[in-house]
Amino acid sequence: MFHIIEILGTIAFAISGSLTAMSKKLDPFGVFIIAFVTAVGGGTLRDVMIGQTPVAWMKQLDYVYLIILGFVLALLFRKKLDRFRISLFLFDTIGLSVFTLIGLQKGLETGLHPIICVALGTMTACFGGVIRDILCNEIPVIFRREIYATICMAGGILFFLLKALKVNDELLSVIVAVFMIVFRILAVTRKWRLQPVERQ
Amino acid sequence: MFHIIEILGTIAFAISGSLTAMSKKLDPFGVFIIAFVTAVGGGTLRDVMIGQTPVAWMKQLDYVYLIILGFVLALLFRKKLDRFRISLFLFDTIGLSVFTLIGLQKGLETGLHPIICVALGTMTACFGGVIRDILCNEIPVIFRREIYATICMAGGILFFLLKALKVNDELLSVIVAVFMIVFRILAVTRKWRLQPVERQ
Amino acid sequence: MFHIIEILGTIAFAISGSLTAMSKKLDPFGVFIIAFVTAVGGGTLRDVMIGQTPVAWMKQLDYVYLIILGFVLALLFRKKLDRFRISLFLFDTIGLSVFTLIGLQKGLETGLHPIICVALGTMTACFGGVIRDILCNEIPVIFRREIYATICMAGGILFFLLKALKVNDELLSVIVAVFMIVFRILAVTRKWRLQPVERQ
Repeated sequence: MFHIIEILGTIAFAISGSLTAMSKKLDPFGVFIIAFVTAVGGGTLRDVMIGQTPVAWMKQLDYVYLIILGFVLALLFRKKLDRFRISLFLFDTIGLSVFTLIGLQKGLETGLHPIICVALGTMTACFGGVIRDILCNEIPVIFRREIYATICMAGGILFFLLKALKVNDELLSVIVAVFMIVFRILAVTRKWRLQPVERQ
Repeated sequence: MFHIIEILGTIAFAISGSLTAMSKKLDPFGVFIIAFVTAVGGGTLRDVMIGQTPVAWMKQLDYVYLIILGFVLALLFRKKLDRFRISLFLFDTIGLSVFTLIGLQKGLETGLHPIICVALGTMTACFGGVIRDILCNEIPVIFRREIYATICMAGGILFFLLKALKVNDELLSVIVAVFMIVFRILAVTRKWRLQPVERQ
Repeated sequence: MFHIIEILGTIAFAISGSLTAMSKKLDPFGVFIIAFVTAVGGGTLRDVMIGQTPVAWMKQLDYVYLIILGFVLALLFRKKLDRFRISLFLFDTIGLSVFTLIGLQKGLETGLHPIICVALGTMTACFGGVIRDILCNEIPVIFRREIYATICMAGGILFFLLKALKVNDELLSVIVAVFMIVFRILAVTRKWRLQPVERQ
């Protein structure tokens, strides 16, 4: 079950990367690289910073195949993807929650402090998109517009609250994932936004 | 003593990151991330490249708390920070010299060649700002305008000259730090600049 | 022989970085950093991701000296470099093939899957240029215009085909290098391009 939603999340991230790259009129190779980086960039940054190398996607080729699949789907259906907007949004939201949980888990296994684990969860889920935006020469969208990283951090905090209450691991993951998914759907449908910080 | 100025330096770097991010109208989360990256980005890059992982701020939470403090100060006083311009400049200059020394020291401990140690010192002090500028979609300011990295390199060379003369470690750090601070103050007050390289 | 072309490749990459940085009117320090990053950025990223730290150029100072040489040559001859355009293109092409082979080899030594090795070869040869373009605030040129990474991937695939046919290592390297060099010369002289992916 967990594995299936990780698959959906990876494909969704690869498609989202492909779409951003196409909107910048990149060539197919460029589109593929951006798809790749969007899907695995956050986890790569995390693995490099905690010293788990070679990084995950080098040892588990499933990621590579899933990204190729997402890239091909994006190429084939690029004129029709707007119709799947809601499905894509849902996959992306699922990816957000799963990747946050994976990052939290890795932090725990490495014996790091809960605050650092929350940072790792947020990094895993969000920084693929940050690198995507940098490569496309944009200020990263999560710094500007949408409640996205905030959801990851809230999910991480809930994770450690439930852990302190000794909720068992399976149930805990489900609760955190559902919480994040509902939070994101509400945030997007109700247009919750963080305001920019003004100096004047 | 050394520790206190490291604290001042970290806070100064976090404030400088916050100010840059606010000028780009980022949301509070974006401002925080930029503050974080400005303060620890250089050291993170250094640790990852020499293989000291998990990177420093994951093991020593002081950095995280200091950055939160700098971020909160920048938020609260954002309309009045211009009045503290000179204090901020001094803290930033202190940070520059301390982080250079930390980088040099880490290079030595890793058994690297003096030239590489100088590169690590410069990286530790300057590359947080480089990553800050990339995330804010600017050409890094230290490549364009100010004598900044040059001071780090000069400090690094002085460090190894004094070491060759067998000056004791404490004294050596103080001399190098004072040299860099004076150099920077002179460079800014007298508007020393490197000229761009022209091809025509 | 292999070593000599690695030297030529490193110098060529350092010159190409210097030229890009000069066209952005950076100061000499900025030009040097961009030269450095262009020459060793790809290999650094590779070493960090597979966990071979300290990264190569920290242990082998030859790289540093060669980059300084390339930087000085670019500074001295900056007004006349257009005359050496063809030599520079050839050196760059040689660098492309050598760095791809080095990346492939490192992947094999680390025991990684052929697909990942091809990715590492491409990364070694191309990502110095990607980081150069990001630091200069451009969308990386290899995502937009030229058949460049495609050649690295084709070279990597040929490498493993020949390996499967049990061609001996020396001969294999020569064949792959010659193939890549001819491919690139043909691609540039005949203006082969990948078309951007259009969504409308």
